[in-house]
Amino acid sequence: MTTPVAAIQSVQLDDEQNALILLDQTLLPNEKVFLQLTTVEEIWDAIYRLKVRGAPAIGIAAAYGVYLGTKQSNAATFSELSADFQAVKQYLASSRPTAVNLFWALNRMEERLKKEAEKSVQEIKDALRDEAESIRLEDEKICYSIGEHALSLLQPGWGLLTHCNAGTIATAKYGTALAPIYLGQEQGYDFQVFADETRPLLQGARLTAWELQEAGVDVTLICDNMASHVMKEGKVQAVLTGCDRVAANGDTANKIGTSGLAVLAKHYGIPFYICAPLSTIDFECKTGEDIPIELRKPEEITTTWYEKPMAPENVKAYNPAFDITDHELITGIVTEKGIAYPPYQESLAYLRTKD
Amino acid sequence: MTTPVAAIQSVQLDDEQNALILLDQTLLPNEKVFLQLTTVEEIWDAIYRLKVRGAPAIGIAAAYGVYLGTKQSNAATFSELSADFQAVKQYLASSRPTAVNLFWALNRMEERLKKEAEKSVQEIKDALRDEAESIRLEDEKICYSIGEHALSLLQPGWGLLTHCNAGTIATAKYGTALAPIYLGQEQGYDFQVFADETRPLLQGARLTAWELQEAGVDVTLICDNMASHVMKEGKVQAVLTGCDRVAANGDTANKIGTSGLAVLAKHYGIPFYICAPLSTIDFECKTGEDIPIELRKPEEITTTWYEKPMAPENVKAYNPAFDITDHELITGIVTEKGIAYPPYQESLAYLRTKD
Repeated sequence: MTTPVAAIQSVQLDDEQNALILLDQTLLPNEKVFLQLTTVEEIWDAIYRLKVRGAPAIGIAAAYGVYLGTKQSNAATFSELSADFQAVKQYLASSRPTAVNLFWALNRMEERLKKEAEKSVQEIKDALRDEAESIRLEDEKICYSIGEHALSLLQPGWGLLTHCNAGTIATAKYGTALAPIYLGQEQGYDFQVFADETRPLLQGARLTAWELQEAGVDVTLICDNMASHVMKEGKVQAVLTGCDRVAANGDTANKIGTSGLAVLAKHYGIPFYICAPLSTIDFECKTGEDIPIELRKPEEITTTWYEKPMAPENVKAYNPAFDITDHELITGIVTEKGIAYPPYQESLAYLRTKD
Repeated sequence: MTTPVAAIQSVQLDDEQNALILLDQTLLPNEKVFLQLTTVEEIWDAIYRLKVRGAPAIGIAAAYGVYLGTKQSNAATFSELSADFQAVKQYLASSRPTAVNLFWALNRMEERLKKEAEKSVQEIKDALRDEAESIRLEDEKICYSIGEHALSLLQPGWGLLTHCNAGTIATAKYGTALAPIYLGQEQGYDFQVFADETRPLLQGARLTAWELQEAGVDVTLICDNMASHVMKEGKVQAVLTGCDRVAANGDTANKIGTSGLAVLAKHYGIPFYICAPLSTIDFECKTGEDIPIELRKPEEITTTWYEKPMAPENVKAYNPAFDITDHELITGIVTEKGIAYPPYQESLAYLRTKD
């Protein structure tokens, strides 16, 4: 974990300035701006306006936010401090009510607070800092481990295809699907990465192409419908994507377009890997059929950035945000504890219990 | 051919006004404007500025253009008329130097001119009108026949998926891949059509969704990467696309993304049909490997309508305009003389010689 990998850190704590340093993702790819946020209101606003995105990155920002807000408290006793903590926590929780990781991180901070109840106010504040830092470091370690395992599947000089953004800016560092690319770059693997632009919201064009280019990785942007052609031309030796949720049998929900890539990869004989922290494997969910698909508004397809229409007025548009990739199409699922291979029912369950 | 099918005619002659009536495709989908063009300069400009697009439609516009230009001649003899014809022909030929159909149509008009050399100036002018009208009518008949044959493969209520624009506005009428949809609509087939938006230039969103909606067909726009999901959901019973060129073995060059759709269709057990006039079958070309793929400029991917960047500056982008669909992935190739099935080497050669 000591290698200075080129991946950008999108969420950091600045102790001297008592500030959260946040890469403003809404300005990408046109401007690279790190915000210095010192008030809880600024942090709330940054989460609300999606300046920070990606489940792990949101959780880390919220943890730092509740720490910084509590640190500013003038409380003299635990009960006063706890009241101030609760106010900050509830306020930050309202910034993005559907982000599961936001609540997970805030609740974990609260547990730590309660655990330290007997300590002095200053010691409790230090403990909160420590907890937020742990949340970030644990995520970074998970991503790094995913990167190491995934890298063992790849060879120098390979062409890699990825979809959407499962990158460093969505996590503490390294990302999931992009982690082996950063680690491989450090070791001279010289990957040629193809980034699907990922319609309709273009996370591949705006974020993945940006962060890989920023880190000096050889990246080429393509439209989603060009994947078949670049595979046929022999330019791709492996496909790597992240995921939103994996069912117990390995069926995987990820950004719309992922299932199509998996079908193409199988047709062209190219291995297809999902990179996922074990926390995204939902053992309660038996198959992909149990995973609901979010339908988003048609305007994301019919207008360019909500400005200029590029389809006829009132045309029907179908806009599923995710799709399910059948486990049969997935070569392996790479987690921080190792790689699961079919049958996933068993291999994923084994990884869950493994130390 | 007498049924009043709802398909729009994008190129027409107005004898009373001595005008070419042209649907301005550059204003679609936001405005439906029919231009009334009376001078050769206006017609040249319309072809040059892509106000008319689609190989057959360009050829028809050029034929009408050379007729209207020659009609305005004050020539008293054949040689004077022929000189005026040549001037108009060469001028129009310079409007879009890479459009094969433009030259084909202009040369055909010239042959007719020469054939009528013995007739009076007025009779020759009438013959040129007749020839231009024949070019349009023949294309309309070809499209109608493709539509009839393709419709025989489809059933009422089916969901159909198409890519790019192989529609009425690119031809005299009906289009190729969209022809069975218009014919079926007239007969109450109630198709549900899914139109891929077709990145990077969005012909599906701007043109296909527009012309089908205009004709009252039930059309739903999707992003290219959603095709796998709608197929998996059982919403698609057949895929129909046009093509730019078919090799003797059935390998087919068409808009980028077509080969991927064919792979998906095979995976999901959905028939995949190419709709093509016999003139697009290139018997000199043995396989798809003999067909060069045009690479276009990266800016089509990296900027929105050349206005707003949506990818990092100077990022590499790979922008193949077409891809090759292996004959093995094609269920049938629908021509005006009937449907070719594998092995295509034989079935296409048979259709070529068939009366």
